[in-house]
Amino acid sequence: MNEFELIADLFAPLATTPGAFGLKDDAAVFRAPEGFETVITKDVMIEGVHYLSGTNPARVAQKLLRVNLSDLAAMGAEPQSYLLGCQFREDVSQNWLHEFAQGLTEDQTTFGISLLGGDTTKTPGPNAFSLTAIGALPQGTAIRRSGVQPGDEIWVSGTIGDGAMGLMMAKGEYTPKDASDAPFLKDCLELPTPRIGLGQRLRGIASAAIDVSDGLIADLGHLARASGVGLTLAADAVPLSDPCRRALAEGASDLATLLTGGDDYELAFSAPAGSRDGLLSAADDAHVAITLVGLASDGEGTVRVLNEGQPMAVSQSGYRHF
Amino acid sequence: MNEFELIADLFAPLATTPGAFGLKDDAAVFRAPEGFETVITKDVMIEGVHYLSGTNPARVAQKLLRVNLSDLAAMGAEPQSYLLGCQFREDVSQNWLHEFAQGLTEDQTTFGISLLGGDTTKTPGPNAFSLTAIGALPQGTAIRRSGVQPGDEIWVSGTIGDGAMGLMMAKGEYTPKDASDAPFLKDCLELPTPRIGLGQRLRGIASAAIDVSDGLIADLGHLARASGVGLTLAADAVPLSDPCRRALAEGASDLATLLTGGDDYELAFSAPAGSRDGLLSAADDAHVAITLVGLASDGEGTVRVLNEGQPMAVSQSGYRHF
Repeated sequence: MNEFELIADLFAPLATTPGAFGLKDDAAVFRAPEGFETVITKDVMIEGVHYLSGTNPARVAQKLLRVNLSDLAAMGAEPQSYLLGCQFREDVSQNWLHEFAQGLTEDQTTFGISLLGGDTTKTPGPNAFSLTAIGALPQGTAIRRSGVQPGDEIWVSGTIGDGAMGLMMAKGEYTPKDASDAPFLKDCLELPTPRIGLGQRLRGIASAAIDVSDGLIADLGHLARASGVGLTLAADAVPLSDPCRRALAEGASDLATLLTGGDDYELAFSAPAGSRDGLLSAADDAHVAITLVGLASDGEGTVRVLNEGQPMAVSQSGYRHF
Repeated sequence: MNEFELIADLFAPLATTPGAFGLKDDAAVFRAPEGFETVITKDVMIEGVHYLSGTNPARVAQKLLRVNLSDLAAMGAEPQSYLLGCQFREDVSQNWLHEFAQGLTEDQTTFGISLLGGDTTKTPGPNAFSLTAIGALPQGTAIRRSGVQPGDEIWVSGTIGDGAMGLMMAKGEYTPKDASDAPFLKDCLELPTPRIGLGQRLRGIASAAIDVSDGLIADLGHLARASGVGLTLAADAVPLSDPCRRALAEGASDLATLLTGGDDYELAFSAPAGSRDGLLSAADDAHVAITLVGLASDGEGTVRVLNEGQPMAVSQSGYRHF
């Protein structure tokens, strides 16, 4: 298949919104609903850097989409469409391409979105992808990183550390003793769940939010610096899955690794102390657990980590791609 | 510099629009003006595939931006902002990075746009970039590829073939006898001029438009298929620059190469036969020459090329990236 056949065969069927013009024009057209504004984000994912070679192609596509949707979720936006830039290796197989497109097809249904445009090319390098995700929210309601106030409580959705343990496992550095933990951790690494429903329900309640992609401590650092506050994280309060608890009990990992590993795609957010009922109700509606893990105070953009009340040493706060 | 320092140092100063949040949030926010809609496009550019290794880094950045702005121009949109995905080689130098950012800085001023967001990472492959360009136009006025009607005249802006000769020269396959031709052709290849002013003025006059990136004949083929018409191109009417005319005279190239070479970033567009005055006035306002090069007729999406009235053989219609 040449470039044009590939687009017609694999990608045009994904361009279900009229403004995509069936991927047959120079650009696409869209409009945010009346009273709404557009939220936009772009992430890059490279084979061997952001995901392991040999990962199921459908899941490569789905993770690419989901890490971007997670950014939209952190702003409180509803996803609408996306543009896709594909750099495929010279030796990519037809089967790989079809599975990649199948992953997008599935997730378009799951998240109610449409492909809007993009570009496809071959590369002498590894497979690499960029995705631009587009969402919408009522004008002026975006949840920013910079809104944390001293006295706010810090919350996190879901569980933290599963992506890090999933990566250790995928790299052959960890084999769970409990066999059922393996598929769970693999799914957490390869198929994260962007907290879209929660993000939208946090609009007007949360004072700030971020998605946990670089590692919880690093991402709290981003919140703290953007807001000009100090944050205290109670490491022992951070919610962990049973597989992660077992990995800790087996001595296969430590808490610092889980809090700095990244690839969680949970939301970390702040809210005034009086917001607990509203937050718990929002989380309940979104079918996701949330846990109180910290507190904001006057400060200079720093994160203090306590474990059972004692300062906890953390050598590296999070993953850096550069 | 790590990823965060790089973004803060090189890219945050480019994020001049408030909705970019200084590149410090999970996503950016923007809104099309009242009565307008958003036009969006995304192109990928890879070292050694879409540009030669050793190209001036400022120009790599500028070409990346301009090929996307050319897509917006073809729709008739006014550029507003862009998102940037960078995959930098492990051995990229600080100097290279600074020159790359400097190219963006210059072109942001030239085109009145702002960086809105993106992602930066290192890659084991070649340098590779993706750019998502965002523009706006009055709702419902986008110029499509599909609007050519039988009887319409086909026009092209500027001159065709300069990018192709510039590439031959850059690859060492052509040395102009006239020394002043070399910088001209180099500039055409490395620093194309997106026809933004013309594109906007063609709204309501042109029946269809495309930007000439794959090669004039190939791009006319896209127009013909999207519109379900036949197109006849008078090859001898296609406007050529003096350097290209000299290359032809020297036997260094042939007309077919110039008409299929790509990288022109001119606009090819159609309009009813009675539109000449309006078109010429629009082109005059946009300070660019336009030339009548063909005619649309009933047909099945094919392009017939005539040279001095005789059918012209063209072996390959245009560049294919895949």
